[in-house]
Amino acid sequence: MEQQAWRALVALTTRLPAALDTQLQRESGITHFEYFVMTLLSEEPGHRLQLSELAQKANASLSRLSHVVSKLERLGWAQRVTITGRRGAQAVLTDAGFRKVTEAAPGYLECVRGLVFDGLDEEQAAQLLALTEILLGQLDKGMSRGIGRSGRPISQFEVEDPDG
Amino acid sequence: MEQQAWRALVALTTRLPAALDTQLQRESGITHFEYFVMTLLSEEPGHRLQLSELAQKANASLSRLSHVVSKLERLGWAQRVTITGRRGAQAVLTDAGFRKVTEAAPGYLECVRGLVFDGLDEEQAAQLLALTEILLGQLDKGMSRGIGRSGRPISQFEVEDPDG
Repeated sequence: MEQQAWRALVALTTRLPAALDTQLQRESGITHFEYFVMTLLSEEPGHRLQLSELAQKANASLSRLSHVVSKLERLGWAQRVTITGRRGAQAVLTDAGFRKVTEAAPGYLECVRGLVFDGLDEEQAAQLLALTEILLGQLDKGMSRGIGRSGRPISQFEVEDPDG
Repeated sequence: MEQQAWRALVALTTRLPAALDTQLQRESGITHFEYFVMTLLSEEPGHRLQLSELAQKANASLSRLSHVVSKLERLGWAQRVTITGRRGAQAVLTDAGFRKVTEAAPGYLECVRGLVFDGLDEEQAAQLLALTEILLGQLDKGMSRGIGRSGRPISQFEVEDPDG
């Protein structure tokens, strides 16, 4: 049974991100992670956030996030700025970046509904939230014991900023 | 609420695969997807399977699977064989590949328990299976309507084999 649940969870965590990437690439020419990072910035006051905080919200290592911010910079959708007297750099969404994410949003939401929420009633959606939060809690717990973490001193899900 | 459930699901589908990759890379020098593909082969009679079927079981496009089989070939853990009179190539796990997956399995299972199942009681594990199957069903349904699929004639989750 655990085996069956695990295989199903592996299928979901493999197939769902692949489908989201395919849809966003096709419609907007960006990956789901790029879209997600821009959405997170668009929700912040001034459309800006410390890179380390942004990495945490985006569920990514600082190095993965930094790589994507560089790509968004090249595309003119984000800028990296350093504020004197503050630790670490910030990422800022440009006006073009805000337009990009605003344009991509309706298609993305339609895709999320079609691939996920159209199949769930209200109770199942609540169950999904509850269960996913339990799973994220256990993931944190396991990782705090060193499972699934690299051996490097600054780990994937700490918010410390090596630029600081 | 859907928004909250969605954010949690995105976090899970981003963080869990990353943690599994980190752990397997650290302990066995392979990615989770490589490990999973070898495990699937190890479960088959003769440790072999048609590439197109293997791709479907591994939740991957044929091109992604084919890429990984080539890597496993270079490492000496798999071979690609063509059977006269049968459509498409097969992947076969070598003895060295079988040893590799057997050696990696205990650490992997411990990791899966520590990151996932230690946090679930039996009822929650059953709920996880039920809910994940609903989600996979909706994913199939959405994709059959063209959401999250590339425009190419052979799509990601069909089993047709273009080599045939």
